[in-house]
Amino acid sequence: MRFPTQKEPKIVYGGDYNPEQWEESTWEEDMRLLKLAGVDILTLNVFSWASLQKNDEVYDFSRLDRIMELVKKHGFFVCLATSTGAHPAWMARKYPDILRTDFEGRKRKFGSRHNSCPNSPTYRKYSVLLAGKLAERYKTYDNITAWHISNEYGGACYCENCEKAFRVWLKKKYKTIEEVNRVWDTAFWGHTFYDFDEIVVPNLLSEHYSENGTAFQGISLDYARFNSDSILECYKLEYDAIKKYTKEIPITTNLMGFYKPLDYQKWARSMDFVSWDSYPYAGEDPAQIAMKHDLMRGLKDGQSFALMEQTPSVTNWQTYNAIKRPNVMRLQSYQAVAHGADTVMFFQMKRSIGSCEKFHGAIIDHVGHEHTRVFQECKRLGQELFQLGGETLSAVTKSKVAIIFDWDNWWAVEYSTGPCNQLRYYDEVFLYYKALHEQNISVDFVSVESDLSNYSLVVAPLLYMVKEGFDQKLKEFVKNGGTLVVSFFSGIVDEHDLVTIGGYPGKLKELLGIWVEEIDGLISGDENSFEFLGKQYPAKLLCDIMHTIQAKAISFYQKDFYKNTPVITKNSYEKGSAYYIGTRSNPAFYHAFFENLCRELDISPTALTSDHVEAVRRVKGDKEFLFLLNHSKQEERFFIQFKTYNENIGKEAVNMLTKEKMPIETTITLAPNDVLIVKINS
Amino acid sequence: MRFPTQKEPKIVYGGDYNPEQWEESTWEEDMRLLKLAGVDILTLNVFSWASLQKNDEVYDFSRLDRIMELVKKHGFFVCLATSTGAHPAWMARKYPDILRTDFEGRKRKFGSRHNSCPNSPTYRKYSVLLAGKLAERYKTYDNITAWHISNEYGGACYCENCEKAFRVWLKKKYKTIEEVNRVWDTAFWGHTFYDFDEIVVPNLLSEHYSENGTAFQGISLDYARFNSDSILECYKLEYDAIKKYTKEIPITTNLMGFYKPLDYQKWARSMDFVSWDSYPYAGEDPAQIAMKHDLMRGLKDGQSFALMEQTPSVTNWQTYNAIKRPNVMRLQSYQAVAHGADTVMFFQMKRSIGSCEKFHGAIIDHVGHEHTRVFQECKRLGQELFQLGGETLSAVTKSKVAIIFDWDNWWAVEYSTGPCNQLRYYDEVFLYYKALHEQNISVDFVSVESDLSNYSLVVAPLLYMVKEGFDQKLKEFVKNGGTLVVSFFSGIVDEHDLVTIGGYPGKLKELLGIWVEEIDGLISGDENSFEFLGKQYPAKLLCDIMHTIQAKAISFYQKDFYKNTPVITKNSYEKGSAYYIGTRSNPAFYHAFFENLCRELDISPTALTSDHVEAVRRVKGDKEFLFLLNHSKQEERFFIQFKTYNENIGKEAVNMLTKEKMPIETTITLAPNDVLIVKINS
Amino acid sequence: MRFPTQKEPKIVYGGDYNPEQWEESTWEEDMRLLKLAGVDILTLNVFSWASLQKNDEVYDFSRLDRIMELVKKHGFFVCLATSTGAHPAWMARKYPDILRTDFEGRKRKFGSRHNSCPNSPTYRKYSVLLAGKLAERYKTYDNITAWHISNEYGGACYCENCEKAFRVWLKKKYKTIEEVNRVWDTAFWGHTFYDFDEIVVPNLLSEHYSENGTAFQGISLDYARFNSDSILECYKLEYDAIKKYTKEIPITTNLMGFYKPLDYQKWARSMDFVSWDSYPYAGEDPAQIAMKHDLMRGLKDGQSFALMEQTPSVTNWQTYNAIKRPNVMRLQSYQAVAHGADTVMFFQMKRSIGSCEKFHGAIIDHVGHEHTRVFQECKRLGQELFQLGGETLSAVTKSKVAIIFDWDNWWAVEYSTGPCNQLRYYDEVFLYYKALHEQNISVDFVSVESDLSNYSLVVAPLLYMVKEGFDQKLKEFVKNGGTLVVSFFSGIVDEHDLVTIGGYPGKLKELLGIWVEEIDGLISGDENSFEFLGKQYPAKLLCDIMHTIQAKAISFYQKDFYKNTPVITKNSYEKGSAYYIGTRSNPAFYHAFFENLCRELDISPTALTSDHVEAVRRVKGDKEFLFLLNHSKQEERFFIQFKTYNENIGKEAVNMLTKEKMPIETTITLAPNDVLIVKINS
Repeated sequence: MRFPTQKEPKIVYGGDYNPEQWEESTWEEDMRLLKLAGVDILTLNVFSWASLQKNDEVYDFSRLDRIMELVKKHGFFVCLATSTGAHPAWMARKYPDILRTDFEGRKRKFGSRHNSCPNSPTYRKYSVLLAGKLAERYKTYDNITAWHISNEYGGACYCENCEKAFRVWLKKKYKTIEEVNRVWDTAFWGHTFYDFDEIVVPNLLSEHYSENGTAFQGISLDYARFNSDSILECYKLEYDAIKKYTKEIPITTNLMGFYKPLDYQKWARSMDFVSWDSYPYAGEDPAQIAMKHDLMRGLKDGQSFALMEQTPSVTNWQTYNAIKRPNVMRLQSYQAVAHGADTVMFFQMKRSIGSCEKFHGAIIDHVGHEHTRVFQECKRLGQELFQLGGETLSAVTKSKVAIIFDWDNWWAVEYSTGPCNQLRYYDEVFLYYKALHEQNISVDFVSVESDLSNYSLVVAPLLYMVKEGFDQKLKEFVKNGGTLVVSFFSGIVDEHDLVTIGGYPGKLKELLGIWVEEIDGLISGDENSFEFLGKQYPAKLLCDIMHTIQAKAISFYQKDFYKNTPVITKNSYEKGSAYYIGTRSNPAFYHAFFENLCRELDISPTALTSDHVEAVRRVKGDKEFLFLLNHSKQEERFFIQFKTYNENIGKEAVNMLTKEKMPIETTITLAPNDVLIVKINS
Repeated sequence: MRFPTQKEPKIVYGGDYNPEQWEESTWEEDMRLLKLAGVDILTLNVFSWASLQKNDEVYDFSRLDRIMELVKKHGFFVCLATSTGAHPAWMARKYPDILRTDFEGRKRKFGSRHNSCPNSPTYRKYSVLLAGKLAERYKTYDNITAWHISNEYGGACYCENCEKAFRVWLKKKYKTIEEVNRVWDTAFWGHTFYDFDEIVVPNLLSEHYSENGTAFQGISLDYARFNSDSILECYKLEYDAIKKYTKEIPITTNLMGFYKPLDYQKWARSMDFVSWDSYPYAGEDPAQIAMKHDLMRGLKDGQSFALMEQTPSVTNWQTYNAIKRPNVMRLQSYQAVAHGADTVMFFQMKRSIGSCEKFHGAIIDHVGHEHTRVFQECKRLGQELFQLGGETLSAVTKSKVAIIFDWDNWWAVEYSTGPCNQLRYYDEVFLYYKALHEQNISVDFVSVESDLSNYSLVVAPLLYMVKEGFDQKLKEFVKNGGTLVVSFFSGIVDEHDLVTIGGYPGKLKELLGIWVEEIDGLISGDENSFEFLGKQYPAKLLCDIMHTIQAKAISFYQKDFYKNTPVITKNSYEKGSAYYIGTRSNPAFYHAFFENLCRELDISPTALTSDHVEAVRRVKGDKEFLFLLNHSKQEERFFIQFKTYNENIGKEAVNMLTKEKMPIETTITLAPNDVLIVKINS
Repeated sequence: MRFPTQKEPKIVYGGDYNPEQWEESTWEEDMRLLKLAGVDILTLNVFSWASLQKNDEVYDFSRLDRIMELVKKHGFFVCLATSTGAHPAWMARKYPDILRTDFEGRKRKFGSRHNSCPNSPTYRKYSVLLAGKLAERYKTYDNITAWHISNEYGGACYCENCEKAFRVWLKKKYKTIEEVNRVWDTAFWGHTFYDFDEIVVPNLLSEHYSENGTAFQGISLDYARFNSDSILECYKLEYDAIKKYTKEIPITTNLMGFYKPLDYQKWARSMDFVSWDSYPYAGEDPAQIAMKHDLMRGLKDGQSFALMEQTPSVTNWQTYNAIKRPNVMRLQSYQAVAHGADTVMFFQMKRSIGSCEKFHGAIIDHVGHEHTRVFQECKRLGQELFQLGGETLSAVTKSKVAIIFDWDNWWAVEYSTGPCNQLRYYDEVFLYYKALHEQNISVDFVSVESDLSNYSLVVAPLLYMVKEGFDQKLKEFVKNGGTLVVSFFSGIVDEHDLVTIGGYPGKLKELLGIWVEEIDGLISGDENSFEFLGKQYPAKLLCDIMHTIQAKAISFYQKDFYKNTPVITKNSYEKGSAYYIGTRSNPAFYHAFFENLCRELDISPTALTSDHVEAVRRVKGDKEFLFLLNHSKQEERFFIQFKTYNENIGKEAVNMLTKEKMPIETTITLAPNDVLIVKINS
């Protein structure tokens, strides 16, 4: 985000505002209420395409002009959206190519949102035109702090235009049809192609029998890539159109955490900053929310991000929509900031009265005044953010631990038919993340393209696909003293989902020093077991049956015909070590494993707290910001020493919300859902 | 129903008879068996369109002529159907416009029944032509007691003809596209329309993601209305064609209880009398069956109705088809009569030998003779009905309690995305109904257009939608001394599903004297609790968090952050009172609540009986008919005083089946599934 | 299978080999490994159509030529497939008629396999052309032991070509549209047809509301027959094309056990021998596997069959894919041989590296060498099979008990709407089979066309449909001294699914000596009970309520209003007896029932063993081969006398794998999963 020069930087506060849904006469009262709540930024124009463009020729920006003037007059920043998240009805009628065809091959009609075919010539033409016109028209508004292209991009299309574009994409990638045949292994089931035009989109009418079930992983995997690229291309075309007019205003689009259809790591390269929408369900594990923030922060190598949307109180689209308990909204806002957010924004400023989101929470409720619990909580947080000021902005997170996350791997491992169709990449990653998070060990999410050299420990759960060169990168990392942890079902395939022959884990065999001979899929309910540091843990889902080569077995199966064969191994490899965990265990195991390993590797927690109190740190120069977040329903009390990232005792500690100095060693009492933010000078 | 002048009126007995499925040589034996069973009415010609009309030009009524003569000769009444419940195969082939397009957008082919598009020009043309021809041809048959148009109308169509007709319907209703945009709130998600032709049908290809899940409630709601109207229009066109020839014969179509797709309250205005098909599943709560009868009776303001179909023994289309235990068919027949039926009719007289209903029960089973348990039970009831005679015909039900039921509200509340997608209107209504029914409190079902002035107590469960003027009607009712009970999630929207701003429960705020600030959706399994008259009850699903304004809180939540805030309130409003129940509780609570309230309001049970014995009254002049129905598997024994509706001791009591006089105070013993019908003279 | 004259017959060992998926440079190593494993037969060319035929004109057999030469040089037999199990992509693009339309009416695109419309002119033309070309080209290879047409035929098509062909099929079968109307009972729901062209395919767009749910059983039943016939016709056309060139080589296609869509009893008439693919899931009841083998053996009246596919270790397509425990593959291989297999073959020789089957087991794993558990187990079995030699080939099974199985009945009983949609023919049959199998009673599966005269006991579970003349056959069987056991819901309909009127069980009424008046469908969880030989057993799902006529009731219901009415009856009918079991009970009952009955009928077990040890016999001249298979995880120990089929003490007993003589009476110890094969000379 940029901060216009006349404004003091702080964590901006606000969110989606849709005055176009209301009589103009109500706007001034909205302004009063929003200022009262401490709001300083408004996301405008998210869904106005149909009203801005009346037909092929005629555009009408008059109402948006009035809105822009209104909010400028009242001193609000603007995050200006391009409105291309839903196309106009008239356009769908006149140019049906803009409509998607779904996974079942059904041509859709006008309706809902996220509804445009990414390869529609009409969509590309008119979305880019609109983005350019908006940029040209409003370029002089210095209260625009960011552009917001479209909204929550997603989904997929399987229409004829996409089919043709897919062939072009393939031709560009593979050059010859022979190479396509090779990488898709089309000799299997006689799928040999002689011409790119013989290739059809993989959906329920062709290769698929379910969303994840496909006869040809290679085709489906490439289509996932192609679809992500196609939608990204739409984004980039708007991006370029805007940059022509406003080079200095950063551009983003709001992402959605672990959203499988779009390769956000690739997308982030084309985004000036990352922004995302956080909608935890009631009772969601705070570690899950934290993990999503960490993934988002990792998309641009640790650069701070925008929390673009969250609900002030309640969602409407879940089966059961519980309201956020008192202080939970504040707690989750600070959790976002702790993990790297530089904004606290909401969907939405004011509840709509019609359509499907009318029961979604907002600062201004249907009652229309400020005398609600939710408004008051929003207002209190708004005031606090003014007090907090801009110190935390752009502060970074420092971690000694990285988890590898890779979208291609996600797609590939879940398209796999066998050894177990219940394998879910997200679930495996979360088991590893949570074990670290609950010990307050800071974790970065990195991609296979990231620099690993600054980490002590790299964790690669379910690294089924090892892309060209990534095995080398891991070897370098370990050679130089790093510690690597890899889970079962890793090292199986290359980037085309073709198995690396010569024994699993393929290209990781040497580094891990093992050979996995067989993979046993355990029937739901069955389990094996193993001992680790004197305790017994279960082995579930998949059990790799393996042989050590150079590695040393450190734990063994206790049952079945592979009793006493290794389940966890450690391979010393030059200056470092590589661990292999050959099965899925339970959270207690991962906790014990990382507790022990981090102790060995001298990786310290951000802070020692009582259970349920999350400790997160951001660093900026010689200032460190320690966030202590009480996620429990009880008051928590614990002793703490305010140390720096480098484990030195801090020189000074200040409670950032009260501005009071704190003792460097002290006992802290945190009310349920309460937050303490301490600035530590190093 | 009309009774030809030469016949003594009685509860007619019979049902669907399909001789066209059999060799003519078998017909005479059928006549013998049906007379033996005491049958006096036959529903004919339900599915014969294809055989009556051979192509565009040629009709052949010869077989129907023979059937009409046959049954006339044997002295049967006829309920004559128009056969338009399934169109001919040749017509589907020649005029595909008659075929429906389903919710997924798939054009259907010929098959099954209820298969005609209601906006098909072909269907309308030929169905009306057939109805007219039938009326003209058989108008002189004075044994026709009623016309039966089509059969179990239902379903929906989403074809292009419907799409066009929908636009016409909208134009007629809203006049301008601007008004459509307003009532559908199309500024949301950029759905602004410029032309009616941009509007497409709302289904899985456009606004919907599931049957109830829609992005635009307004569109979906109007389509539900349009679909109900379209089908009703088909009915009315046939109705008019028939009336041209037989003004005096009443016309009906068989309804199906709580059938959501058709607004039966609107339909009933075009029906000379209501008839319906009652198919309780095995073990269904007798209160549910009773509730359906009461809904049906309420459609025409308490006018008696026809039980058009029930099975004598077994259905075939349920997962598990249990046979009705001995005497259950009789019990359920009298339950229908008790709640307002003037007929006892079956599907069917004789089991078919092919197709999907061949295992559906009938008076004449596949064995073909009378020596079956089922035949003998039918015969016994047939004889009893002759004994019973015509005294109960047209007798009415008197109730001091009314429950509001509204189809628009049903559609709207279940289309709502949030606060809980598990909300079901039927379930909420049943909780309230059952609490009254199990105390033998007589209940009328009324619509929002009904006159409420004769009731002491009006109950409006889940009155989410408050239509124009209905808040005024409720206020008048309470002002004049009535008592109103409203549940949570009420008063939220107007007839367009647009939220009434200014605080929930919107237009009911003043009457109820409360402000509901928030609605908490409880995760499945979670519950809060409250105390009522010294007992604790659960609060589930949704918890309204509210403030009393003029109302007095009479119960409070016991947990969570809204502990000690009101959950049940009572507002004294001029001469009456308005209660608000801010959550869903369990059956025991509703029982206690209404027990207490009815005592206060002096609303007495129809009779005091032991549990499981239902007491229902019909009144005609100075005669009252008290039905005592034992739904338990045990013998029931209880003391009773035969009082009148006005709580006076009756002058005389007669067992209507034995014709024996009974003491005015007596102890009654009822065998399992047995029935006692007592005539009380007032 | 034929054995080329220069080779000694033995159980051939091998399976699917797809060298076309690999570089040619790897082929020689494959040869070494396969010979090392003891493989002697390779199934080739299963999925190569696209590579063999490049366009309408150009065929290229050069690679297949090299493969054929390679395997010939190395002395392998060949089972040569025609490759028509998946059509080429170019063909689908050029001739879309080859693509299927699915049950929902969706035209499919190119993808997956089993993808050709059986009535596609293109498919028929080019598949037959290819089969002929292959036969002509390779006819001189005397190592071809069998032709393998297509692969695992299955599925169904609902396209316009099929619709037209269906009408032709109907016209041929029924001659007139009046007869179609009669057998489909179209008077019901007004479905009268005037022209064959009015008939449309029965699917989700017409008569069906689910796979089994149909409004017109007659149409759906005929379509099932038509679809099976259509696919069979494709097979037969290829068959004829091959026979032109290689009269002496037997032809087969690989079946799939209880595969409902294809009437294998009809198919088998056109197969020179039966072959099938056995894929038990982990933990599958050995009795189920045995039952499938017995069904397959019965298809050609007991002629031995080929085990065409099984996995050496693991499948990939199940939810959880457990590996076969040590020795289980060997155990299951011998189980197949015990039940009539003359081959032991695998899918597959070598794991592919791409697409959906890359995690399916193979003899040669991804590691590429022989040092795996699986390879070693395969090798050990390969060696054993050489030792075993050819003695068991063509040996037959002798059974005194037959179970009737009929595909038309399967379709009809599961299309039935009522009395219970949870009825499954397979499940009912298995209950009866298992009771016999677990007592080591040998069972043949026979069709309604089979000769029953050699059996003592015939069991007909759920014989809902009694085809023309089959009641006579059963009567003859019983008259001549046979014993018949029939279950509930039998004798209901004729071959058109039209009910036989006059009382259930229709045409079996006289033979069974009973009249079933009503059928009670029990709600899930409900049960009745009855006593048999002093023990109580449950009655579930359906309870027939019946009257004995000539039969004698031998057990009675214990509850409900039909308490003390018969549930099991026995009718003495001339020299034999006919039992009727009027409900579904539990496995313990069926065990007790058949234990008692077999004792009465002097039907002896194949051998008395401990539980979990299956005993199966094959007979060839005066040699008998007794297979003792330990399916338990424990060592089993039991005393045995080696008797012949005729209950005589054998003259000599030899352990066929060790060639050692064994005492005629002895105690046997079998390790878990171990097998003993004893040759007994009579």
